[in-house]
Amino acid sequence: MTTVRVELDQRAYDIRIGAGLLGRDTFADVAQPKARALIVTNTTVAPLYAQALQQALEPHFAEVLQCVLPDGEQYKDWPTLNRIFDALLERQCDRKTTLFALGGGVIGDMTGFAAACYMRGVPFVQVPTTLLAQVDSSVGGKTAINHPLGKNMIGAFYQPRLVVADVETLRTLPPREVSAGLAEIIKHGAIADAEFFGWLETHMERLRALEHDAVVHAVRRSCEIKAAVVAQDETESGLRAILNFGHTFGHAIEAGMGYGQWLHGEAVGAGMVIAAGVSERLGLLDPASAVRLQELVRRAGLPVEAPALPLQRYLDLMQVDKKNDAGNVRFVLLQGLGGAVLRAAPQDLVTSSLLAHGAIRDASPAMSGPGSPASRTAGSLAA
Amino acid sequence: MTTVRVELDQRAYDIRIGAGLLGRDTFADVAQPKARALIVTNTTVAPLYAQALQQALEPHFAEVLQCVLPDGEQYKDWPTLNRIFDALLERQCDRKTTLFALGGGVIGDMTGFAAACYMRGVPFVQVPTTLLAQVDSSVGGKTAINHPLGKNMIGAFYQPRLVVADVETLRTLPPREVSAGLAEIIKHGAIADAEFFGWLETHMERLRALEHDAVVHAVRRSCEIKAAVVAQDETESGLRAILNFGHTFGHAIEAGMGYGQWLHGEAVGAGMVIAAGVSERLGLLDPASAVRLQELVRRAGLPVEAPALPLQRYLDLMQVDKKNDAGNVRFVLLQGLGGAVLRAAPQDLVTSSLLAHGAIRDASPAMSGPGSPASRTAGSLAA
Ligand SMILES: NC(=O)c1ccc[n+]([C@@H]2O[C@H](COP(=O)([O-])OP(=O)(O)OC[C@H]3O[C@@H](n4cnc5c(N)ncnc54)[C@H](O)[C@@H]3O)[C@@H](O)[C@H]2O)c1
Ligand SMILES: NC(=O)c1ccc[n+]([C@@H]2O[C@H](COP(=O)([O-])OP(=O)(O)OC[C@H]3O[C@@H](n4cnc5c(N)ncnc54)[C@H](O)[C@@H]3O)[C@@H](O)[C@H]2O)c1
Ligand SMILES: [Zn+2]
Ligand SMILES: [Zn+2]
Repeated sequence: MTTVRVELDQRAYDIRIGAGLLGRDTFADVAQPKARALIVTNTTVAPLYAQALQQALEPHFAEVLQCVLPDGEQYKDWPTLNRIFDALLERQCDRKTTLFALGGGVIGDMTGFAAACYMRGVPFVQVPTTLLAQVDSSVGGKTAINHPLGKNMIGAFYQPRLVVADVETLRTLPPREVSAGLAEIIKHGAIADAEFFGWLETHMERLRALEHDAVVHAVRRSCEIKAAVVAQDETESGLRAILNFGHTFGHAIEAGMGYGQWLHGEAVGAGMVIAAGVSERLGLLDPASAVRLQELVRRAGLPVEAPALPLQRYLDLMQVDKKNDAGNVRFVLLQGLGGAVLRAAPQDLVTSSLLAHGAIRDASPAMSGPGSPASRTAGSLAA
Repeated sequence: MTTVRVELDQRAYDIRIGAGLLGRDTFADVAQPKARALIVTNTTVAPLYAQALQQALEPHFAEVLQCVLPDGEQYKDWPTLNRIFDALLERQCDRKTTLFALGGGVIGDMTGFAAACYMRGVPFVQVPTTLLAQVDSSVGGKTAINHPLGKNMIGAFYQPRLVVADVETLRTLPPREVSAGLAEIIKHGAIADAEFFGWLETHMERLRALEHDAVVHAVRRSCEIKAAVVAQDETESGLRAILNFGHTFGHAIEAGMGYGQWLHGEAVGAGMVIAAGVSERLGLLDPASAVRLQELVRRAGLPVEAPALPLQRYLDLMQVDKKNDAGNVRFVLLQGLGGAVLRAAPQDLVTSSLLAHGAIRDASPAMSGPGSPASRTAGSLAA
């Protein structure tokens, strides 16, 4: 077992990473022998790991309850969150009750937000069981639910007391979900650590085969990078934005395809390639590095092309349109592999990278004819 | 205008108290000329004061929006909170949007919680328009909504950037609501400041007549007392509990009568008298002081007797029952006027004070016969 410390003064906490942690005495630090624990999980994860966690917690708490939610991003909403509150209130749980999030990012985000709100805050512990949750969503204290009008719009910055990442649980994860998690790992290397990026190039096959040593190293290094950024900017007022590398394009892909079609990590994979393309066009990244990124994304089992949607649709989704001063949309770009900058990008370079990576130039006469809104936009902005 | 500072390090803020503040340039400190403001209010307060606030804010923000909610504690719930999120998202409001709570404690609690959650936190300002909100709910950063299974169960500690208490707005407040606010003012004197308590005895009629000077002084002193307690214990882990003087009994009254029958302040009025009775019976408070408290509560236009409910119902509502070790229920008690202690009280003294102030000894055979659960409880605990 290895430990990464997230330095946040009084809210500092440990991330424990290893194989078989659910079976061991990993939870002694957060023991509350007179209080209750509530495991929040979903219908997919519960049959796999809830019993192991239940057994691991029972020695440390007066009682261990479970709340099993339906599985899926579409349930990351208020009615489902409310089932956690129902479970707590039906059993008259008090402010000492600790919540355990057992599952992927959806369960982690919801449980964390429930813990932030229940009686204005109860302790919680993250037990992430997807690769994405282990390297990304369980670290940093962002919690949220979705609103019909926007993803992750309602939430809190609320730090867990402990994160326990048992890489053993990844064995049951569908390969597509493994790849999605690899996207965020690649992201961490690309924005902050060229050496780690190189290590990923060497170990990608072992990672996809879920070899313990390789996975533990990748999870640890990812957590270290994210934790260092979060420690400097807990509430995303500046630096933390670099963690969104690939995400402006990624979100446009997710929204453009309809949420749930592309996994978040898949969209981020293609999004990073497009963002690297913009970096290259701005002269920030050399072409060879852009190719290395694209290759690593591909070898992670992720798409390197955006889905074929009209260019204007992408620009609309990113709010790069004529109503907006294009210079106002800032992108996280790579300044060499291992370095990130936040930079406004001229729309023609954004357009060019999108077209080079799958977006289709719209053929409808209304959009492409001379004097059409689309060409006017491009024209006025290129001028 | 007078100012009270709430000392909370980076989250410190001012409370501005005076007459006619809505009409003046009170909001320059929180100006965000490039961002939006959203006034959250209700159908009662909007026609009275929304336009004045709108005009006061317009010079300081790019745009000032309004969200008018239905009026009533029964709307302090998720669906109504969601209307704030709808309003924000329909207009694509960003993280720089400042929320203004214009109304009583219900609007303040909901708007504060919405601000805590929207995009994981946007700035907010309290503009309390009830006496209770000016002296109590707008200060200290507790925000919440109700859950069908419990009041204020879902919320956050989230501090406003500024509180603006315009005592002029109290002119339109129903007298019953004025009295409810006076309950919390009396509470602040009773737990923390004997001199202020004496001042209240001298000025009660002027307060009920809403004379500006008197109200400003009472609001300021109340805010100072609450702010000092909050500054020492922002998240209610200890000291802050003394602000609940009268509230254990008060909540039992509110719940026993069905929420909405008694105003919160009314229940706290009677609750303080009962708690003073317990203090007296424990030898913490001299009888003359207990009488002074009761008299002041009466002169504030508040009930000094609990509603006639069976004693056992009160004990159940306070969870002082045979399943509980009575010694575990701790009450905020007065140690002399102007001093508060947190103390477990033997059930017979609690019972005696309840009976002396309106609770009825249950006459049903199941509860009162020898060997009944109620008498066994009383017996075993008195032993
Ligand atoms: N809080 C943050 O900082 C942050 C960062 C990134 C993403 N997120 C959020 O995370 C969510 C995505 O997380 P995710 O990718 O983990 O998705 P997820 O939680 O939906 O999990 C993916 C799927 O894998 C299943 N699963 C989980 N663990 C498993 C296991 N061990 N074996 C088999 N199946 C398992 C889940 O039930 C689900 O069907 C999104 O809602 C996103 O907004 C949050
Ligand atoms: N956050 C805290 O620390 C805290 C402390 C105490 C109470 N509270 C909460 O505060 C709420 C009670 O607050 P309240 O007593 O202000 O009740 P309220 O908000 O319901 O207001 C009482 C009534 O007065 C009306 N009103 C408000 N201002 C008016 C004005 N100037 N003129 C005429 N009518 C006006 C309201 O519309 C309402 O009908 C409860 O929900 C309680 O839980 C919170
Ligand atoms: Zn991501
Ligand atoms: Zn109160």
